[in-house]
Amino acid sequence: MKLARFLVNGSYHEGSLIAPDVLCDEAGREYSTDAVSFLPPVEPRTMIGLALNYKDHAQELSVALPAEPALFFKPLNTLVGHRGQVIYPQGIQYMHYENELAVVIGRRCRNVAEAEAFEVIRGYTIANELTIRDFVQNFYRPPVKAKGWDTFCPLGPYLVEGEIEDPHKLELRTYINGELRQCGNTQDMLRPIPALIAYITSFMTLEANDIILTGTPKGVSHIYPGDQMRLEIDGLGVLENTVVAEAATTSGEHI
Amino acid sequence: MKLARFLVNGSYHEGSLIAPDVLCDEAGREYSTDAVSFLPPVEPRTMIGLALNYKDHAQELSVALPAEPALFFKPLNTLVGHRGQVIYPQGIQYMHYENELAVVIGRRCRNVAEAEAFEVIRGYTIANELTIRDFVQNFYRPPVKAKGWDTFCPLGPYLVEGEIEDPHKLELRTYINGELRQCGNTQDMLRPIPALIAYITSFMTLEANDIILTGTPKGVSHIYPGDQMRLEIDGLGVLENTVVAEAATTSGEHI
Repeated sequence: MKLARFLVNGSYHEGSLIAPDVLCDEAGREYSTDAVSFLPPVEPRTMIGLALNYKDHAQELSVALPAEPALFFKPLNTLVGHRGQVIYPQGIQYMHYENELAVVIGRRCRNVAEAEAFEVIRGYTIANELTIRDFVQNFYRPPVKAKGWDTFCPLGPYLVEGEIEDPHKLELRTYINGELRQCGNTQDMLRPIPALIAYITSFMTLEANDIILTGTPKGVSHIYPGDQMRLEIDGLGVLENTVVAEAATTSGEHI
Repeated sequence: MKLARFLVNGSYHEGSLIAPDVLCDEAGREYSTDAVSFLPPVEPRTMIGLALNYKDHAQELSVALPAEPALFFKPLNTLVGHRGQVIYPQGIQYMHYENELAVVIGRRCRNVAEAEAFEVIRGYTIANELTIRDFVQNFYRPPVKAKGWDTFCPLGPYLVEGEIEDPHKLELRTYINGELRQCGNTQDMLRPIPALIAYITSFMTLEANDIILTGTPKGVSHIYPGDQMRLEIDGLGVLENTVVAEAATTSGEHI
């Protein structure tokens, strides 16, 4: 089941994908996926990211693998849906997409054993965990200003429940303006999903719809205003977002 | 106005303090403050902490002052109300209280100028921003595991609206088992509140009830199971919590 949250003429709907391009809402009404505005498919309370959870990505950055999972928080102001705009801040040089398998938690949990980790997973979606490299001095602990800008976490388009047999055998592909820039596989995670859930819940309670961003493989590169980002993960669909220069969409005044 | 959220016999109430020890709920019913279970006075979407925002605290840790505000996120699983228990994890050595003025944001805002910062503040409360020093290798970027444990952010007892004339002239006092351990004043913040709000909103949208934890002054020290923590800030009341060993309250199973 592929679940979506979306707006139609400004009104909110929840529904599921019943054909490749058709969404059906709770009242049985059908919509073309081209006719809706996608929202992030879930509303997490907490989003936890993993720095350097793919060996090949650590190698391309020339940094050692972390001895312990390198966690950071992605704040909720970063969330934007499929086809939403990603704002490119003024005055920066190096902004990177990061295609990541997002694990959506299914229920409140703490101290989850690795062997029981899949019991607390609700489903999966695609995250684009954007980063400004200008501000990353320490790859193990990226600062808030590198990862926390508004619109820096496109998520979706769907929350995929029950369809993914093995989340550690999914190919990730990122296209920028149609060019394949990043291609990896979730089998290359340094620490697989059960280990991440066991580690995090050893000290934190996770809630239903909380999200773990499981890291990105090799292949990050610079993006610029005007770029079209297309992120694919096997079985999860396609997450597309456009990069837009800051001045074009924000006024500098209070919102 | 001192606002509180609390439970009475398991049912939820919101109210205000109408006498030193009397709360009045929305229906006009009165309760002794000793007869209620306090919840955190607000429900933030995001809590942002400041590392090293008092010069004397940086000096006691023998570290240089940060060139830029050193932000981190305090996750919401850490929240606990006045008189709630704080869990002391097994196997650690150095756990510290941190008495901090918590600024509660009043409305959605972005790109707030310093001169307008007070317009977006709803009020103030007391936070105990607990930290496990064992896990802090870098004081500028404390890891999630140092600050993110369940119960590591007692907050309250009240959201104080409209009573604080100058939030930069408040004394903070922390007593452990009745002994004064920490005494500072918000006038010694390295970066005052308007500068923090301007910096954070230069890249992040803040929402109503989001919280900025403005840092702690000199005087942190180790705490242990059984310790009674009493945090005072002028005009905001008294936030009391007890430290309890982990084994006494968690089963190690799923919750």
